[in-house]
Amino acid sequence: MRAGVFDSGVGGLTVTKSLMEHRLFDEIVYFGDTARVPYGTKDAKTIIKYSLEALEFLKSFDIDMLIVACNTASAHALEELRKNASFDIFGVIEPGVLAAINALDDKNSSILVLGTKATIASGQYEKLLRKNGYENIVSLAPTLFVPVVEEGLFEGEVLQSAIKHYFGGIRQNPDAVILGCTHFPLIAKAIQDYFPKSALIHSGDAIVEYLQTKCHLRPKANATTLTLLASDNLEGVKKTAQVWLEGLI
Amino acid sequence: MRAGVFDSGVGGLTVTKSLMEHRLFDEIVYFGDTARVPYGTKDAKTIIKYSLEALEFLKSFDIDMLIVACNTASAHALEELRKNASFDIFGVIEPGVLAAINALDDKNSSILVLGTKATIASGQYEKLLRKNGYENIVSLAPTLFVPVVEEGLFEGEVLQSAIKHYFGGIRQNPDAVILGCTHFPLIAKAIQDYFPKSALIHSGDAIVEYLQTKCHLRPKANATTLTLLASDNLEGVKKTAQVWLEGLI
Repeated sequence: MRAGVFDSGVGGLTVTKSLMEHRLFDEIVYFGDTARVPYGTKDAKTIIKYSLEALEFLKSFDIDMLIVACNTASAHALEELRKNASFDIFGVIEPGVLAAINALDDKNSSILVLGTKATIASGQYEKLLRKNGYENIVSLAPTLFVPVVEEGLFEGEVLQSAIKHYFGGIRQNPDAVILGCTHFPLIAKAIQDYFPKSALIHSGDAIVEYLQTKCHLRPKANATTLTLLASDNLEGVKKTAQVWLEGLI
Repeated sequence: MRAGVFDSGVGGLTVTKSLMEHRLFDEIVYFGDTARVPYGTKDAKTIIKYSLEALEFLKSFDIDMLIVACNTASAHALEELRKNASFDIFGVIEPGVLAAINALDDKNSSILVLGTKATIASGQYEKLLRKNGYENIVSLAPTLFVPVVEEGLFEGEVLQSAIKHYFGGIRQNPDAVILGCTHFPLIAKAIQDYFPKSALIHSGDAIVEYLQTKCHLRPKANATTLTLLASDNLEGVKKTAQVWLEGLI
């Protein structure tokens, strides 16, 4: 089984890592739209257009399923993508919400949703959480986390001041924090240090759990073969993959 | 006279501000490629492709001249752009270098060049400075300054920690600091506070001086008419222009 994994840039490699660790597919064809990254600061119309173009591109690789690793594209383009494909397409938002629900004691639990501006503006996480009876939700777009991660500052003063800037107004340790952007798992430690009592929800773990439960995918005997594609700076994407997917490729 | 001003996003409005303050043109047609911003982290090939597309788009507005406000596009695409137009096209790098030279006492002066990754990688500022006999140059890409500015953090702890992160290794107060990215003038005060003895070189002032000296442009009687165009989120660009160009539009 060959899955396409689509992201606005390199961030989706964190989701790819989870998929590969669980050997859910024989092959993964990864496409990062690095020529137009980031999506998270752009309009819904633009995000949908780019996502549809990525879909058409990935169709030419004969994929059997598409995973939209990018939370922003999942939030805005999933419906349009599904209208334009004959295979299954999964985003990371529903899996993230289900993983959060699994991690929480009851419906009074407090949830902090973190995402890009576009993801938060879509209200998709919040809508789905409310539909499931959760009301105690704070949504936040810590925009600088993405470039801070891309600059490789996974710890230190710049990250700490950004964390303080965005989280300073949050009085209570939330019961769950949804890391609703593929970049955020890379600073999970710093977020966990700030909110030591929170369950952190990672899109990669969430989609694995979802595919296992809903699609009954089981680990393949062999390791997943990974093909990397990018609209800009493929060498950079490959270098990042070497580090982030160490031991898997 | 109608000038096109092209930038990867909203940053070029800082250059537009200088042009409008000096009323060098009857009309300015501004195009921000906000659907694909930023350029500064992308490959030369991609930057050239996007710049040529912007040129073709602006041609349809009957411009008499094009100002490439974006340092990254100036660094990589100027030659290609000039090959594809019958009107004059000016970037901001040569003007910036000339402005720096004007501000410096002698050729032993020290110069700090700040720009995006792509601008610094091009080595264009450094090449032109060396050609003019300057050797004491440090080039630096403080990548996070762009998103910090776009987040509106013109002062405060996040900006200060980013400044410390990038400038911490610079032992001496440079004689001149070239603000080689349209975003950087917006945090000029913080940079000046860190390097109190430096002459700060601003692309907007530099291109005005250049057009006055080289093209003998003189102030028009009337204020410049500004048309704003963008490939994404035009409303956001207009809002930013209302703030940054206060009193001019």
